[in-house]
Amino acid sequence: MWSLQVFTVFAFAYVASGQFELPNPWTWRCVPQEGKDSVCVKELVTATTSGTSSNAACKITCGKYGPLWPKPKSAKIGNEVQYFLPSAVSENIVASEADKALVVQAVEIFKDNLNAYHPGYKKRQVVWRSRDGAKFIELRVSIEIEGPSQSHLTLDVSDEQYSLFVETLPSSSITNATIRAKTFFGARHGLETLSQLIDYEEAENSLMIVNSADIADQPSFTYRGLLLDTSRNYISVDSIKRTLDAMAANKLNTFHWHITDSHSFPMVLKSLPKMAYYGSYSDRDLYQPEDIRNLVVYGRVRGVRVLPEFDAPAHVGSGWEWGPQEGLGELTVCYKQEPWQEYCVEPPCGQLNIANENIYPVLGKIYKEMVELFGPIDMFHFGGDEVNLNCWNSSEEIVNYMSSNRVDRSADSFYGQWSIFQNRAYDLLTEANNNLPVPGILWTSHLTEKGRTTRFLDKNKYIIQIWSTGTDPLIKELLENKFRVIFSNYDAWYLDCGLGAWVGDGHNWCSPYKEWQAVYDNSPNKIALNLSSTVDLSLILGGEAALWSEQVDSESVDVRLWPRGSALGERLWSDPDHDWRDAEYRMVNHRQRLVKRGVQADRLQPEWCHQNEGLCYINKA
Amino acid sequence: MWSLQVFTVFAFAYVASGQFELPNPWTWRCVPQEGKDSVCVKELVTATTSGTSSNAACKITCGKYGPLWPKPKSAKIGNEVQYFLPSAVSENIVASEADKALVVQAVEIFKDNLNAYHPGYKKRQVVWRSRDGAKFIELRVSIEIEGPSQSHLTLDVSDEQYSLFVETLPSSSITNATIRAKTFFGARHGLETLSQLIDYEEAENSLMIVNSADIADQPSFTYRGLLLDTSRNYISVDSIKRTLDAMAANKLNTFHWHITDSHSFPMVLKSLPKMAYYGSYSDRDLYQPEDIRNLVVYGRVRGVRVLPEFDAPAHVGSGWEWGPQEGLGELTVCYKQEPWQEYCVEPPCGQLNIANENIYPVLGKIYKEMVELFGPIDMFHFGGDEVNLNCWNSSEEIVNYMSSNRVDRSADSFYGQWSIFQNRAYDLLTEANNNLPVPGILWTSHLTEKGRTTRFLDKNKYIIQIWSTGTDPLIKELLENKFRVIFSNYDAWYLDCGLGAWVGDGHNWCSPYKEWQAVYDNSPNKIALNLSSTVDLSLILGGEAALWSEQVDSESVDVRLWPRGSALGERLWSDPDHDWRDAEYRMVNHRQRLVKRGVQADRLQPEWCHQNEGLCYINKA
Repeated sequence: MWSLQVFTVFAFAYVASGQFELPNPWTWRCVPQEGKDSVCVKELVTATTSGTSSNAACKITCGKYGPLWPKPKSAKIGNEVQYFLPSAVSENIVASEADKALVVQAVEIFKDNLNAYHPGYKKRQVVWRSRDGAKFIELRVSIEIEGPSQSHLTLDVSDEQYSLFVETLPSSSITNATIRAKTFFGARHGLETLSQLIDYEEAENSLMIVNSADIADQPSFTYRGLLLDTSRNYISVDSIKRTLDAMAANKLNTFHWHITDSHSFPMVLKSLPKMAYYGSYSDRDLYQPEDIRNLVVYGRVRGVRVLPEFDAPAHVGSGWEWGPQEGLGELTVCYKQEPWQEYCVEPPCGQLNIANENIYPVLGKIYKEMVELFGPIDMFHFGGDEVNLNCWNSSEEIVNYMSSNRVDRSADSFYGQWSIFQNRAYDLLTEANNNLPVPGILWTSHLTEKGRTTRFLDKNKYIIQIWSTGTDPLIKELLENKFRVIFSNYDAWYLDCGLGAWVGDGHNWCSPYKEWQAVYDNSPNKIALNLSSTVDLSLILGGEAALWSEQVDSESVDVRLWPRGSALGERLWSDPDHDWRDAEYRMVNHRQRLVKRGVQADRLQPEWCHQNEGLCYINKA
Repeated sequence: MWSLQVFTVFAFAYVASGQFELPNPWTWRCVPQEGKDSVCVKELVTATTSGTSSNAACKITCGKYGPLWPKPKSAKIGNEVQYFLPSAVSENIVASEADKALVVQAVEIFKDNLNAYHPGYKKRQVVWRSRDGAKFIELRVSIEIEGPSQSHLTLDVSDEQYSLFVETLPSSSITNATIRAKTFFGARHGLETLSQLIDYEEAENSLMIVNSADIADQPSFTYRGLLLDTSRNYISVDSIKRTLDAMAANKLNTFHWHITDSHSFPMVLKSLPKMAYYGSYSDRDLYQPEDIRNLVVYGRVRGVRVLPEFDAPAHVGSGWEWGPQEGLGELTVCYKQEPWQEYCVEPPCGQLNIANENIYPVLGKIYKEMVELFGPIDMFHFGGDEVNLNCWNSSEEIVNYMSSNRVDRSADSFYGQWSIFQNRAYDLLTEANNNLPVPGILWTSHLTEKGRTTRFLDKNKYIIQIWSTGTDPLIKELLENKFRVIFSNYDAWYLDCGLGAWVGDGHNWCSPYKEWQAVYDNSPNKIALNLSSTVDLSLILGGEAALWSEQVDSESVDVRLWPRGSALGERLWSDPDHDWRDAEYRMVNHRQRLVKRGVQADRLQPEWCHQNEGLCYINKA
C-alpha cells in the first residue's frame, strides 16, 4: 500500500500550522449512479490508485449540473479542471457606459468571491502559491451586454437571462469564459455562475476552474424574494449586507424590507425626525438615510431589488407618539392597549387613526422620503395585513367619525373605510413617485377574502402576496380574478417557525420548523394547479420566504435564512420538476460555499455526508 | 412638555455617529407588581418627570435578584447606582500562591467582561469618557480564598460557594466589593456575579454598579454540564472557547467533550498519529495536543472542568482504518456497512472488534494520551451507548470468537461480552491514570436496562447519564440501586432537536425544538420524585444539555447553545421552585449580556419586550 510505504519512509509529523506533512490519504472519484446523477465517492489512496482528486475537484466536475446552485436551465460541464491564480484573471466588458459601471463593480465582487475560496480568507491570511511552470492558466472573462442599458429590474424574465461559455483550447494556457446577457442583471448572474465553476484546490494552493462549460439560463419566476423584518428586532446594516451577498449567491432578486411595524421605527426620515426619535429602540438601532441609499446600491450591483414596505393601516405604533405634541391629534389608536389580545395578534398593537385626517399628510411625507431613499421604485409594498376591526371599533374618535359619516359599524363598513384608506394611500404613493403609478403589493387579508377582493381592490393596481397555506381556496379565487400573486404561504416559507413561543409557552404559532426540504418542495405552480387546472400560471410572479423578526436579530439572522433561502432560490429560479432529493448533494456543497463567503449558514448534515455522497440516505430510492 | 420644549429650542438633528443629539425621550422606572417581582416600565419623559433612568440602570437595581443569572441562593441588592470607569478598578487578593495565580487570570477576565459592556467593544472602538468631577467612584475588589488551595473541581458543592458584599459608604467615593470563597472556583463565581451587578450607562459613557449588595450563594447541583459533539461536525477551537466563556457566564461547570465518533476523529494523538490522519475530515479540522491542553486551562480559569469522553465500543469508525496496514487486523467492524439501518442508528455505523485483542493496547494508548492532555482528571466518560448487537453478530470474526469461547449468540451473551469490554476499558483507564481510579460515566443503554445494571455495572465505579425521557422508570431503578446519575433526558435537554431531518424528510428524531422554557422547567429532582417519593436525591449529581453536531458546526453552535444553556444553568445552579415565568425578564436581559460578550445567543423576544417588561404575556397569571 502506497500510504503504508509513505509511513515507512518518512517520520510521521505535523507542521506548525496544524497540517499534515503527508498528502491526503483520501481521494474522490465521480461515479455514475443508475438512474440518478453521479456522486463523488471517497476512497483510500492505494498503490493502484491512478491520479488523485480532492473532494472539491470532484464536485465541480461531477454530475449534470456540477456544483451550480440554483441549477441552470441547461448545462454541459467539462470533467477536467485547470488551475489558476486570482492574479491571472482579466476581464473585457462590452456594454453601454452606464451598464459598464455596474459590471465593473460586479467583477470586483466576483474576484472577491474567488478570494473567499481560500481557507485563509476569514482570518485575512490569504496567501496563494506563487506561479510556477506551465500548469497555471490565465482566465479571461468576457462580458457582453447586448440590450439597451437598463438600470433596474422589471417584471420581465428576459432581464435576467444569460449564457456562459467556458473553453480551454488544447495545449493552450488560456481559459476563456464568455458571458452574454441582455441586461446588467443577466450578466451578473453569469458571473455568479462562473464563480461557482471555480473552487480552491488544496493540493495546489490555487484556484481551479472546469475546463469547459456551456450554459444557457434564465429564471422561471420573475419575483424571487426574501422578506426581512427589522422592526420587531433591529438588524444591523452589516447583517443586511451579508443577506444581500447571500441572495446574490442564490440568484434571489428582491429584498423585501419590512422596515417598520408597531414595535419600532428604525427608519430615520429627515422630514419626520420624531418618528425614529420616539420609535427606534435606541439611537444605535437606526437606518440613516445614507444607510438606506447605500443598501439600495449594494443590492443593485448584486442583482437585488430592495423593495420597501410601509405597513399600514395596522402594524403601526412606536414612532407615532408625537401627534398630540404637534397639534395633530392622536395619529394611531389602540397602541399598547390592554388586554392586547382584544386588539391585535401580538403586543403592542396599534393602527392608524382613520378618523384623523392628519394621518394622510404624514403618510404622504413618509412615502415621499421612501421613494427618494429607495427609488427609482418599480413596485411598493403597502403591507395592509391584519387590520383588527375591534381596535378601530374601540376608539371613541373612530366610532364618532363613522357615525358622523353615517356609516354603520358592521364589518363591511369597516372594510369599506379600510379600502378608502388604501386607495388614498395608493394615490399618495403615486404622487410621491412623481405621479408615476407603480404596482402596489398587499398581503392577503380580510380585504382579499372571498367576494371582497374584486369589490375593494383593483387588479391592475395591486399584486397580492399570499401568506395563508398552500391549500387555501383563496389562491384559486385570486388567480381566477386575474390578480397577479406572489407566494409566501406560511406552511413552507415562513422561516421564523418552529422555535419556542415568545409569549407564553409551547412553540410559536406557525410551528413546526420549515426544513429546507419543505422549502424546496413548495411549488407555486403545483399549488395553483392542485386548486384549479385552468388557472393562468403567468399571473404567478414568483414567491418569497419571510423572516419575521420577533425571535431573531443580527446574531442569528444568517442561521435562520441560510441555506433555507437557497432552497427557495432554486425553487424560484429553476422550478425543478423533481423534489429535494435530487438537489441534496448540490445543496450541501452550496452551503459550504456560502460559509466561505462569510455567511453563517446553518449546517444540514455531518461533513461525513458531504465527503461520502449518497450514503446519508433514509431509504434507497 | 419637556421634550416638546426641547424640540422648540434646538433644531432637530443627528450627530455623524448616528446618534441623536437630544437626550433619550424615554425613561424607565422600577414598579412593584402585586404578588410578583418588580418590573421596569418605559415612560415618556415629561415636564413632571423627576430624574430619568436608562433601561440598563433600572434593570440592575430592580427586582429581588436584579439582573443576576443564575439567581443566587440569597440576595439583597441596592436600588441606586454608582458610576465608575474601568481604569478605576483595583483588586486585592488573599489566597495561596497557587490560587492567586488563577485569581489573577479570573480578574483579567472580569475586567474584559466590563469592557465588553461598552457598545464599541465588538468593533474594537472602546473609548470611555474621561473622568470629570466627583461623580465617579473607585471600585475596590477584594477576593479572599479561605480554604486550602484546590486546583480542580471535585463533586462537592462547597467547592463553589461564595459570598459577595458590595457597599458604598455615604459620601465616600469608593465602592468596596468583597468576595469570600473556599476555593478558586467559588471566588470566580463571585467575580462573575459582581460583573453582572455592573453595566454600561449610556448617558455617562461609563460603567455603573449597584451601590450595595449582599449575596450568599452556592450551587444546588455539583455537576452542571454541557455536551458538545465535535465528531459529526468539527467545531473550531475559537468556537469552543466562546462556549467556555458563555458557560462561565452561566456558572455551568462541566464541558463534556464528545470529541470522537464514527464520523470523524479530530483528536491528534502523538502515540497514534494515524487516527487523526485517516479519521479527521481534513488537516484543518484537527485538535492538536496543544489545543486541548490550552482549552483545559482556558476552562479551568473560568470554573469549567473539561471532561473528556471517548465513546466505545460503538460510535467508532473513522480513524481506525489502519489496523490491517500495521498488522493489527481489523480494529472495527461494520463501519460503513450497508444497509446501515441494520447495524446502527445513523450512518456510518462502526463498533470495536471485540474479537481482536489488539484493540486493547490501542485503547490503552488513547486513554494514556487523553489523561495527559485533559488531566488531572477527576472523572472520565466512557460513552458506552447504542451498541448494536447485529453489528457484532454480522461479523464472522466475532461470531467465530464467540464460538471459540463457547459463548452462545444470545443478546445476553453479547451484553456479557460488552461488559467484559467495559471492565477492561475501566482498568486500562485506571492504569493510564497512574493506577488512580476515577468514576467512569456511562450513557444509559441496553446494559442499564431493567435487571441488567446491577449485574453488569458497579455503582461505585460508574455514574449513569440518563438520556431517555423524564418519565422513564429506569430512572427510579437506577436511583434505587444507588447509582449516581446525571440527567440529560432528551425530551428537554437535547439542543439539536426540532430541525429538519438530515437523513430523509420531515423533522429530526427528537423533534420538536426544546424551547428555553422547557429547558428551564426540566427539574431532575421533580422527575425523580414523580417516579418515587422515597429516592435518595443526593444521588442526582446534576444534569447536562447535549448538543449533538449532525446539524451544527462553528457557524451555528452559539445560536443553538445560547441562551437555552442559560436556562439549564439556572435550573442546575439555583434549582428554582417556580417555573420559567418568574425568570423571563432576567433571561431576556441576560441574553443581551451574552451578546455583549461576543456570544451569538439567539433572540427570544422582540427588543420591545425587553423595553416593556410585563407586556409580552399570553395570559395574565
